[in-house]
Amino acid sequence: MLDASASGVYVIAPTPFHDDGRVDERSIDRMTDFFLSAGCTGITVLGMMGEAPKLDAEEALSVASQVIRRATVPVVVGVSAPGFAAMRSLARGVMDRGAAGVMIAPPSSLKTDDQIVTYYANAVEAIGADVPFVVQDYPLSIGVVMTPGVIRRIVQDNPSAVMLKHEDWPGLEKITTLRGFEADGSMRHISILCGNGGMFLDFETERGADGAMTGYAFPDMLVDVVRLARAGERDEAHDLFDAHLPYMRYEQQPGAGLAVRKYVLQRRGIIASSALRKPGGSVSAKARAEVDYLLERLARHDPRAGRPIG
Amino acid sequence: MLDASASGVYVIAPTPFHDDGRVDERSIDRMTDFFLSAGCTGITVLGMMGEAPKLDAEEALSVASQVIRRATVPVVVGVSAPGFAAMRSLARGVMDRGAAGVMIAPPSSLKTDDQIVTYYANAVEAIGADVPFVVQDYPLSIGVVMTPGVIRRIVQDNPSAVMLKHEDWPGLEKITTLRGFEADGSMRHISILCGNGGMFLDFETERGADGAMTGYAFPDMLVDVVRLARAGERDEAHDLFDAHLPYMRYEQQPGAGLAVRKYVLQRRGIIASSALRKPGGSVSAKARAEVDYLLERLARHDPRAGRPIG
Amino acid sequence: MLDASASGVYVIAPTPFHDDGRVDERSIDRMTDFFLSAGCTGITVLGMMGEAPKLDAEEALSVASQVIRRATVPVVVGVSAPGFAAMRSLARGVMDRGAAGVMIAPPSSLKTDDQIVTYYANAVEAIGADVPFVVQDYPLSIGVVMTPGVIRRIVQDNPSAVMLKHEDWPGLEKITTLRGFEADGSMRHISILCGNGGMFLDFETERGADGAMTGYAFPDMLVDVVRLARAGERDEAHDLFDAHLPYMRYEQQPGAGLAVRKYVLQRRGIIASSALRKPGGSVSAKARAEVDYLLERLARHDPRAGRPIG
Amino acid sequence: MLDASASGVYVIAPTPFHDDGRVDERSIDRMTDFFLSAGCTGITVLGMMGEAPKLDAEEALSVASQVIRRATVPVVVGVSAPGFAAMRSLARGVMDRGAAGVMIAPPSSLKTDDQIVTYYANAVEAIGADVPFVVQDYPLSIGVVMTPGVIRRIVQDNPSAVMLKHEDWPGLEKITTLRGFEADGSMRHISILCGNGGMFLDFETERGADGAMTGYAFPDMLVDVVRLARAGERDEAHDLFDAHLPYMRYEQQPGAGLAVRKYVLQRRGIIASSALRKPGGSVSAKARAEVDYLLERLARHDPRAGRPIG
Repeated sequence: MLDASASGVYVIAPTPFHDDGRVDERSIDRMTDFFLSAGCTGITVLGMMGEAPKLDAEEALSVASQVIRRATVPVVVGVSAPGFAAMRSLARGVMDRGAAGVMIAPPSSLKTDDQIVTYYANAVEAIGADVPFVVQDYPLSIGVVMTPGVIRRIVQDNPSAVMLKHEDWPGLEKITTLRGFEADGSMRHISILCGNGGMFLDFETERGADGAMTGYAFPDMLVDVVRLARAGERDEAHDLFDAHLPYMRYEQQPGAGLAVRKYVLQRRGIIASSALRKPGGSVSAKARAEVDYLLERLARHDPRAGRPIG
Repeated sequence: MLDASASGVYVIAPTPFHDDGRVDERSIDRMTDFFLSAGCTGITVLGMMGEAPKLDAEEALSVASQVIRRATVPVVVGVSAPGFAAMRSLARGVMDRGAAGVMIAPPSSLKTDDQIVTYYANAVEAIGADVPFVVQDYPLSIGVVMTPGVIRRIVQDNPSAVMLKHEDWPGLEKITTLRGFEADGSMRHISILCGNGGMFLDFETERGADGAMTGYAFPDMLVDVVRLARAGERDEAHDLFDAHLPYMRYEQQPGAGLAVRKYVLQRRGIIASSALRKPGGSVSAKARAEVDYLLERLARHDPRAGRPIG
Repeated sequence: MLDASASGVYVIAPTPFHDDGRVDERSIDRMTDFFLSAGCTGITVLGMMGEAPKLDAEEALSVASQVIRRATVPVVVGVSAPGFAAMRSLARGVMDRGAAGVMIAPPSSLKTDDQIVTYYANAVEAIGADVPFVVQDYPLSIGVVMTPGVIRRIVQDNPSAVMLKHEDWPGLEKITTLRGFEADGSMRHISILCGNGGMFLDFETERGADGAMTGYAFPDMLVDVVRLARAGERDEAHDLFDAHLPYMRYEQQPGAGLAVRKYVLQRRGIIASSALRKPGGSVSAKARAEVDYLLERLARHDPRAGRPIG
Repeated sequence: MLDASASGVYVIAPTPFHDDGRVDERSIDRMTDFFLSAGCTGITVLGMMGEAPKLDAEEALSVASQVIRRATVPVVVGVSAPGFAAMRSLARGVMDRGAAGVMIAPPSSLKTDDQIVTYYANAVEAIGADVPFVVQDYPLSIGVVMTPGVIRRIVQDNPSAVMLKHEDWPGLEKITTLRGFEADGSMRHISILCGNGGMFLDFETERGADGAMTGYAFPDMLVDVVRLARAGERDEAHDLFDAHLPYMRYEQQPGAGLAVRKYVLQRRGIIASSALRKPGGSVSAKARAEVDYLLERLARHDPRAGRPIG
């Protein structure tokens, strides 16, 4: 079961599709194996970058179950839904099948501090107080802004809140403030794993984050950066990170980025097709050439960019 | 099957719950029977006012099926969903069970004209071009603004688009513009049924709407207004409408209104409990007294406000 | 100077323009005189319905000054601005010329409770703590939701906050909650005047509001309703209000409503032209006929709807 | 006068303030001189990053005038305003004082394609068809999404539209599409200068952009990148760009970034104080240390990061 001691890299898994839009089970296994071999300490499925809203209820449960069965690390499942009944169905379903916990993003309709706090209270009531959950804080995409004080209220009100998926942007001061709440005793400790495609992972770890929960096409690099940062190898961590940044930035483009990421995962031999389900973009010929150029440059520093895995 | 000749009142059905949040099947039947006796020409289930997002996939199909089985008029089912797979599952499910058509609202993430048009093209591909559908145009709640030109593009691109649920606000000029498109031959005829709690039904029918698709607690009054307007009894239509307006306005308060509506439906003996599923409001003692006062005043003009049905 | 004892009707004044878009000074005087004769206890200029953002800095000061000079009742001036320097310039300018206070709406960019509270603290610092101000709470138009708790924080933090322009929608429970804060001693008393075109004025006064601050084309009716309500003539207040509601609702259409209001003010002989500055709508022939029909019906109950003033 | 042949780097100038919030005229001169010496081909003042909304009308005109007087390159002035009267006042004022053109962003209230096109038509009517203007396309911040087709309509409808400040994100395909419109003859040529802090400048020039219009603290680097790209020194352009990216990304954090930029401009000796006007952030001690570390690393590749100018 997921708890507040979680750290390392919980990679956000994409959902592999065939070119015709069907779920590609074989690629799910191959991808899961790759994540394990890359040193990921956890896997998160059915996040936004997993195209979760494009799956129907049955498919969602099926994809999550397959990863849970194969993985030897904790699996977190995104259960954000338009209503609590659907959230409950999926949460109970995946917990029964061995998920370590679930992740809940606030719906974009929430406005005030109290509405956000109440939403999480209702969500916990719906899924059960025994299910560990991750608070997803992603204002850039969702439009809901949670102050550190609101996060503290959610954590203090709900013992099953064990982790923050931190992707406020900018967010470095937020990590510092939250760790300060822990230091002054006003908030119990939670795990903080960072998103935003890893774009600030170099400093997030230095600010007190426990690692990353994001879907960058090189989770093996994220693992290395977290390891180097923990080992106090600051310059080495930044050197590796900086080498990846030109491509990482390219992958982090909202909307377009997921198609780029899947293209690179396919290029690396991790999934069979780069297809997104509709509605979803594709990578133009020009963009593909740009990515290839970026990876070629990256390969001079990190050979993993130059060749397929395995 | 729903087609562009639909008219009258397609009442938006609430989903009756027990006080503890379970679906109340007995009230579904009673309510369906009432709608039929009230002269409704159609019933729409699983709309926003039907608390559709609060049901899980199984419940949604079950509620819709029950109404379809009992009703002797066309039943339209709201199938708006975060993704096309879930939309398709529900749409095929209810069509198999005898629904007359489905209703699709655009997701609030859509911004440009082209995005809206493409969304409906994708939706039609997902549910099948053989399924008649209603375009829900509800910018006040959803935030997506469809110009008359965009609606025309959707209609012209998709033969299965047969009806507009018109609830832009203000919207009178929009009806006039759309009917003008039909007159100048640039758009084929569609049915236009109006929402917004009926707040402008008196003039909407005069502008060319075919009736109402809304959930006012007195659908029997909506039926009368549409009938009087068609019969050319303009002053009588307005007299009846105006008598209802003080309460109607009260029911039309966003958020709070659904609890008021359910309170009055319960008061009228149509459903057993006024409970909403979480998250959802309730009617305070003060509000209840205000509603009672409004209905008492209304009963002087329309005796239906003073006593339970049956 | 405006203080927390303010009550009655602070009418929101439109800005009269000539057909070519120039400010119409003669109509400003005529309108001001009408407001005084109608029994308004205050006048608010440069609100949203005063097309304030369409005036440049010089025009804004000039329009406000003219009303202040002529009026024998307190004048409140809207000073909402994209930044504090412009807000300060206008606020100091109009206070120097005899305004009773200013009105400040939160910018739509504000998200969290703390951001809203901080915004008002900064605004007070900018305009000076000696300038009485009105908090405009208008989420339907602005998108910023202030909980009762946030309003309390603003009131308690800033002694110069003396009034709430209440136009949350729905908002009846909010009035009750705020008056409850006063009763339990957690918030000092403020004046609450209600907006939203008067659509709920009948109950707002019963919930504890001190009157209206809105721009309905019949402020003389608003004055009567407030007077009747205070005198305990509940049924009479509602009878008058209900007679106006069919037209009032028509005028309250977002966007389109201001053109309707100006058309009726012109019809009543209060302003010379119904023109709005660009960007702004106009009243179509069909709409004009609908308004005329509504006023004709209204005139059977309230003769003021049938003939020009004076 | 600005025309469609503009290229190079039009740096977005911040507005330098003293620590107490007053405009710092001496720093304006020093900064202007630096921009000229850095090889900027133009200067843009009163953009969002120039804290334009925080200036009152008089200050805005004064700041713009000072830069115009001193600069020997074209000066573009941001004139976005809540209304057309204020926009016109500022636009005519700065053009009279020698500005080369103005920049206009759409207000966030615009929704449909037609609304955006109409807005620019009205803006041109307000400022005069003789004033060259830049269309600012910045959906990430403003929330208004302009399709390439909408931009084409604006360009074709208004001969005075001469430049696009491109900061859609992602935006590479948009440049390609717009240049494609020019190639197929459906749109006349305009200048495209790119924003977003320069985060994609390396590829934007390759896609057909004419340069940058952004406020990165090292405009001298932007000048070099544009020059290298034009000279066909692709690898060298990317090498320089990539060296800056770790810091550039840090500066590009919404909200927080401007304080960082001003800190670095101060560190470089270009402005005297890093102060922002309220409301505005500051750079925490931790953030300052992070920036210093990034610049130290950058200085190994680009000595300009290590020492003050002059």
